[in-house]
Amino acid sequence: MNVRRTVFFVSDRTGITAETLGQSLLTQFDHIEFDLITMPFIDTHEKASNAVVRINSTGQEKGIRPIVFSTLIDPEIREILMTSNAAFFDFFETFISPLESELSVQSSHVVGRYHSQASDTAYQIRIDAVNYALQNDDGMSTKDYDKADVILVGVSRSGKTPTCLYLGLQFGIHGANYPLTEENLLSRYSKMPDALESYRKKLYGLSINPDRLQKIRAERRPDSRYASLKQCQLEVFRAESLFYSENIPFLNTTMISVEEIAATIMHEMKLVRRVH
Amino acid sequence: MNVRRTVFFVSDRTGITAETLGQSLLTQFDHIEFDLITMPFIDTHEKASNAVVRINSTGQEKGIRPIVFSTLIDPEIREILMTSNAAFFDFFETFISPLESELSVQSSHVVGRYHSQASDTAYQIRIDAVNYALQNDDGMSTKDYDKADVILVGVSRSGKTPTCLYLGLQFGIHGANYPLTEENLLSRYSKMPDALESYRKKLYGLSINPDRLQKIRAERRPDSRYASLKQCQLEVFRAESLFYSENIPFLNTTMISVEEIAATIMHEMKLVRRVH
Repeated sequence: MNVRRTVFFVSDRTGITAETLGQSLLTQFDHIEFDLITMPFIDTHEKASNAVVRINSTGQEKGIRPIVFSTLIDPEIREILMTSNAAFFDFFETFISPLESELSVQSSHVVGRYHSQASDTAYQIRIDAVNYALQNDDGMSTKDYDKADVILVGVSRSGKTPTCLYLGLQFGIHGANYPLTEENLLSRYSKMPDALESYRKKLYGLSINPDRLQKIRAERRPDSRYASLKQCQLEVFRAESLFYSENIPFLNTTMISVEEIAATIMHEMKLVRRVH
Repeated sequence: MNVRRTVFFVSDRTGITAETLGQSLLTQFDHIEFDLITMPFIDTHEKASNAVVRINSTGQEKGIRPIVFSTLIDPEIREILMTSNAAFFDFFETFISPLESELSVQSSHVVGRYHSQASDTAYQIRIDAVNYALQNDDGMSTKDYDKADVILVGVSRSGKTPTCLYLGLQFGIHGANYPLTEENLLSRYSKMPDALESYRKKLYGLSINPDRLQKIRAERRPDSRYASLKQCQLEVFRAESLFYSENIPFLNTTMISVEEIAATIMHEMKLVRRVH
């Protein structure tokens, strides 16, 4: 067996950007296993020096130098980190200079730029959208569907709730969701719930592979009819038939992340994000 | 006035990584205003060519070339994009080669690597954590606090719910939240709610500036006592006093994003993420 390579995400803020960027690169090396360590809030010389000690000692223990992905805005802190023995990839260092030339201005080199007044509004928009998702979850209320940007429909446990929450948190989008129940699906002719008739253009379906659905439901209610493979197969089949017959666009969510489900819906429904 | 520069985020997947990278760089140029356009799912030669047409025509209209941040894995698609007149920053092109050398392997160059079997488990962990947040929101139930990784406390509208949801979605962390009500805060001696006594080590406080709180509450219930500045000042003052006297770590959320609130809590409470 190979040694697992250690990867550090180092940031003077939360580390989320360094993680996002680093991980998207690492997914391109799928035969290698990595140990991932995030070091956020490295914003003083002392913390930077301690980080270097930790990185170097990890390298010595494993006998192979770690990889560092960083987003360090302060050049002095970055230089301290660069004294480590790691393979060092700093996202700001790489792109800031060419961007400065392109824009013909110096960058501000100020840490924590997110804290701008402008983010007040963005914060409020996101919170409102999350509250919208919570108040319009699982068909619990349909009276505010006029304000929905999108209404997700699908069988129980097909991923509607987390997708609505993510749409709210990430994009400020108002997502409602409505469950397709046995009543809708298993009557002689599957039919669209009456409550949704007036909102056809906002509907988007989520589907899922029956065997995956069975596993998810079994964790929730083991040995129930609800979680039986037969029931899952029947519900999914009927739900997809309904999507086809009613011309509702839909997505199979089995193998994709919440982020991707949400981004796909944004794209296919031509939704415009309220926050960047 | 200067022309607003157009920035395109181009990706063969969702565009989230390209946006993350580009926006964290653009925040360093705070005197320039940008028009931001995301072009996700550019995964065929035809779509790539259309993207080039759109980029070039935007440049012609504005009389200044656009900036493109891209995460294009397929080298052929990337080359088509590079024929545009834009200033072009491709994230993979920049980092994949040096990483290949460092790891002594070729990268897979496969689009959509997120779709791995491994993500099954991660997905389930996130969904469970979101469900946990929903079931343990706003003090509605305290019976599952044994399973909480962290319990957020704070006055109404201090940001507890979105933070718990984000902790679940992003990190798979089980976050409960419990409101500090008038009853707790405005009796002669503010006291900790009894339900929280046994979980002191899991408590983390959220605070907020009273004038900001007043604005948020006024949108919800205008002209109420609940939304009066005096009431907000009193509640926040008492809540912070309680945090100090009970030795509960806390954060003022007024000027920071949900992402940062969540990452700060992870860091200060030494929580270990369940998903990467």
